[in-house]
Amino acid sequence: MPKDFNETAIRISTGPLPSSRKIHVSGTRFPDLRVALREIALSGGEPPLTVYDASGPYTDESVAIDVRAGLAKHRRDWILARGDVETTDGDVLRAKDGGAVTQMAYARAGIVTAEMEYIAVRENLGRAAALDAARDGEDFGAEIPDFITPEFVRDEVARGRAIIPSNVNHPESEPMIIGRNFLTKINANIGNSAVTSSIEEEVEKMVWSIRWGADTVMDLSTGADIHQTREWILRNSPVPIGTVPIYQALEKVKGKAEDLTWELFRDTLIEQAEQGVDYFTIHAGLRLAHIPLTAKRVTGIVSRGGSIIAKWCLAHHRENFLYDHFADIVEICRTYDVALSMGDGLRPGSQADANDAAQFAELETLGELTKVAWARDVQVMIEGPGHVPMHKIKHNVEKQLALCGEAPFYTLGPLVTDIAPGYDHITSAIGAAMIGWFGTAMLCYVTPKEHLGLPDRDDVKAGVIAYKIAAHAADLAKGHPAARLRDDAMSRARFSFRWRDQFALSLDPDTAMAYHDETLPAEGAKTAHFCSMCGPKFCSMKITQEIRDAAASGMAEMSQKFREAGGEIYQPAAE
Amino acid sequence: MPKDFNETAIRISTGPLPSSRKIHVSGTRFPDLRVALREIALSGGEPPLTVYDASGPYTDESVAIDVRAGLAKHRRDWILARGDVETTDGDVLRAKDGGAVTQMAYARAGIVTAEMEYIAVRENLGRAAALDAARDGEDFGAEIPDFITPEFVRDEVARGRAIIPSNVNHPESEPMIIGRNFLTKINANIGNSAVTSSIEEEVEKMVWSIRWGADTVMDLSTGADIHQTREWILRNSPVPIGTVPIYQALEKVKGKAEDLTWELFRDTLIEQAEQGVDYFTIHAGLRLAHIPLTAKRVTGIVSRGGSIIAKWCLAHHRENFLYDHFADIVEICRTYDVALSMGDGLRPGSQADANDAAQFAELETLGELTKVAWARDVQVMIEGPGHVPMHKIKHNVEKQLALCGEAPFYTLGPLVTDIAPGYDHITSAIGAAMIGWFGTAMLCYVTPKEHLGLPDRDDVKAGVIAYKIAAHAADLAKGHPAARLRDDAMSRARFSFRWRDQFALSLDPDTAMAYHDETLPAEGAKTAHFCSMCGPKFCSMKITQEIRDAAASGMAEMSQKFREAGGEIYQPAAE
Repeated sequence: MPKDFNETAIRISTGPLPSSRKIHVSGTRFPDLRVALREIALSGGEPPLTVYDASGPYTDESVAIDVRAGLAKHRRDWILARGDVETTDGDVLRAKDGGAVTQMAYARAGIVTAEMEYIAVRENLGRAAALDAARDGEDFGAEIPDFITPEFVRDEVARGRAIIPSNVNHPESEPMIIGRNFLTKINANIGNSAVTSSIEEEVEKMVWSIRWGADTVMDLSTGADIHQTREWILRNSPVPIGTVPIYQALEKVKGKAEDLTWELFRDTLIEQAEQGVDYFTIHAGLRLAHIPLTAKRVTGIVSRGGSIIAKWCLAHHRENFLYDHFADIVEICRTYDVALSMGDGLRPGSQADANDAAQFAELETLGELTKVAWARDVQVMIEGPGHVPMHKIKHNVEKQLALCGEAPFYTLGPLVTDIAPGYDHITSAIGAAMIGWFGTAMLCYVTPKEHLGLPDRDDVKAGVIAYKIAAHAADLAKGHPAARLRDDAMSRARFSFRWRDQFALSLDPDTAMAYHDETLPAEGAKTAHFCSMCGPKFCSMKITQEIRDAAASGMAEMSQKFREAGGEIYQPAAE
Repeated sequence: MPKDFNETAIRISTGPLPSSRKIHVSGTRFPDLRVALREIALSGGEPPLTVYDASGPYTDESVAIDVRAGLAKHRRDWILARGDVETTDGDVLRAKDGGAVTQMAYARAGIVTAEMEYIAVRENLGRAAALDAARDGEDFGAEIPDFITPEFVRDEVARGRAIIPSNVNHPESEPMIIGRNFLTKINANIGNSAVTSSIEEEVEKMVWSIRWGADTVMDLSTGADIHQTREWILRNSPVPIGTVPIYQALEKVKGKAEDLTWELFRDTLIEQAEQGVDYFTIHAGLRLAHIPLTAKRVTGIVSRGGSIIAKWCLAHHRENFLYDHFADIVEICRTYDVALSMGDGLRPGSQADANDAAQFAELETLGELTKVAWARDVQVMIEGPGHVPMHKIKHNVEKQLALCGEAPFYTLGPLVTDIAPGYDHITSAIGAAMIGWFGTAMLCYVTPKEHLGLPDRDDVKAGVIAYKIAAHAADLAKGHPAARLRDDAMSRARFSFRWRDQFALSLDPDTAMAYHDETLPAEGAKTAHFCSMCGPKFCSMKITQEIRDAAASGMAEMSQKFREAGGEIYQPAAE
């Protein structure tokens, strides 16, 4: 284990969310599976609600957390049982004999892995069968089943429509899937920079971001401690970890992009693959010929990785070495099961540059490279913009699906206006909800500090919650079979004034409760049959109870009874 | 003037926003017009940018604010010059001889009023002619012109596609228009309740909400001081003020809805019309026969006004008296030019209830009543939901336009999920941006406290900014001719690292600057050619400068020069 962790500074957020407990559901093909979910206890005769849970053992009261030891390596037995890895360098695993140890390779061979069954149970939220309820939504040609079987997971991975980021050297991870026929996922970026931050803070940021629902975390650290920071994050992360390896490669050449070489980059990939990074952002689609297309842009190249590559290409006047060596990159990925996240180095940085020739030229190349990766059983997703006005969002998804063979789309926002720095979690949540609805599989969060500074703890939470909203709104609109269960439970709790249930069902129970208590802090107000919006004298929700009775017993009779009873709506809180 | 204002407690927010000053543009037909706009000074050789400004004299350094005296009654001369009002009860104005003093009546008579020219100049942001730029957007059948003439304003008002809320007794107001062929507007709700708040706070909330961009304000006060609170707000408000008169009527019968009578309601309307309220929310579309349609809803009736009416209807088992007396209500409105905001008492309160039979039955009635109002030259807009999943939003706009003859739509959000109390400014800004794009003319804000408590100052600002984002995103997507000017100015400022210009162009300069300074507080960082995201060592924006040079001089030559120059991107901050 790494040695540089400042133990005195460790403050990891643990413990369950309000009214919640961790439950584990077993598999059928793999009866030993313990698929982690969150169960929310409700009152008023409501059954508990089970929800997706990305937070890992940190919210499990029965697990003792020791960040120095890292999380349990529960996937290691599954990996070893497949008999296709060898050990090098101590504990590091890699494919034997040049084979592919990717979930895509297994899927194409017809194998249902433990990871696949884990995902099926997880995506069904532990349900044993499809819900008996009509579905309602517009999915724009997605093929979301009523019930997710392990075989469906396998088939989606086999045809490249979904990926399971799951490096054999990250056995601490709980399997999850990214694809438009599954629940919409979100990613949180963390990482120190040359300017600020510490390793301890980054580990806690990871734990903090998954506590609120981040499905994957990208470590975008730069600076001196990059390897060590990543090691701590990986050993303690139950979610897949992504990186942009060129950031570390650039550190190795002291920031001089033109000094980058394929050999140095290759060694960096192997270093990170051996550590357990689950997906790499690789800017291989930015070709030399695309660069002049950015000359007339308002904001040029805004992707950091993209600009590093552009700088290299300009300095050497040569084709992007990531493009030239893409087949070699693919070979590394298949050896460890690192998924490729095809970086959009030419994504637009402003409304003005959205959907331009540079952006779509690169997207076309990404489609071409997707086929190269798939030919070698390497899992691929495609990164997307950025800054896009609402009327141009759908076209991005349509083009991406068509050019990239339905490989999962993974977008940053997009921001639907440029004029609200300080609020770009909101400007981008608007675009994210829409692009998620149209078919994006994973949404990369944006925090309120975007364009202004590095996110702190509060910003990370604000970004994650905004994106959980966007992802869930997308699932509702796509007509995901169980998406509305939580909304309906919340609405029933509202209607019955079960305040504690409303808090428990919230994406952020702590904030919901704090806001409620600002106006009505008294304990009695949490069971009161009114709220601070209307006050105790009149309450619109109570009316409906009477309307229900009226509908049941006939309106005229009801009118009579109602007047006889005094016509009052308010019921004492203590009733 | 009212006497109950606690002078010692007055803390009104005044002064211009950073780098901004108030400018006034005169008219052509009415040369004395002084149309207020905000000019943002920029650096780097950029011309100043003129933006829409709802903040009134409070941000004008040349105006001394005295809330006891109220704002100047600049519209009073225009009103008197038309020669169609008489004075009653001191200063109160009303139409002479049963006439109509509505902007719709003038428009239909072919008259261009001073209000109409004011609006044309305002909507053009002071430009003297159309921009010479290609337009880009999808407006779903709206007919947004390149340049707004006073005649266009008149014609839109005449056919009912836009309204100018402008009570003759609110001469302090700066004319503004609500219609889908104009800039998308937002409303902020304020108002004390029985539980909390004071008059002083409410006046400052109004000033505070228009400082950040609220185009109209609704005073939803309940409780004892309702008349006095409203008087203070009206005398100090440069934006139209809306109310829900049934709230005050209910106070007069001590909260017993079944004791409401038409006579008491009528007197309340006249009282408020004489004070200067610019638009009334009237729940006349909720008919007795619609009530049983809500019986199976998950959240029943959630509109406070709707539930008051439903309670009355149930108690008496009679048709809604607002429906029966709608023609009388219209007569009052035409006498003072109060616009009607047709309340959606049956709006859905949950995803489960969206677009149901109850909601659309009421909407149909609202369409029928719109014709009644128009027949008497009364301006109308239609209120809309509420809680609606993304895939059902567009249908709301299409149905509203069809059923209500293109009368302006005015929606609350909608919230695209129910599970995020504490963040409903975000859940609803997603729906608001979309519904604005599809054709909603005004968006009623939702604050983070929605469903939980009453908004305080910070919540009001959070709600207003979220809705300015939604409205502007809608304008961009509709292809409003000048909408992107501010985004482009921001993007150029970003590209050139003009930090102060970025703050000045932000919807909330104070927050943008504060967030920037958290990471890089040094004064030098505001002129630095880097930011905290990448740090000084590498900056993606600077690369593009080189690419531009390369494109200009040939890529190969550039490659050579670049290497000779040392290949470094970073430029010292002090250059």
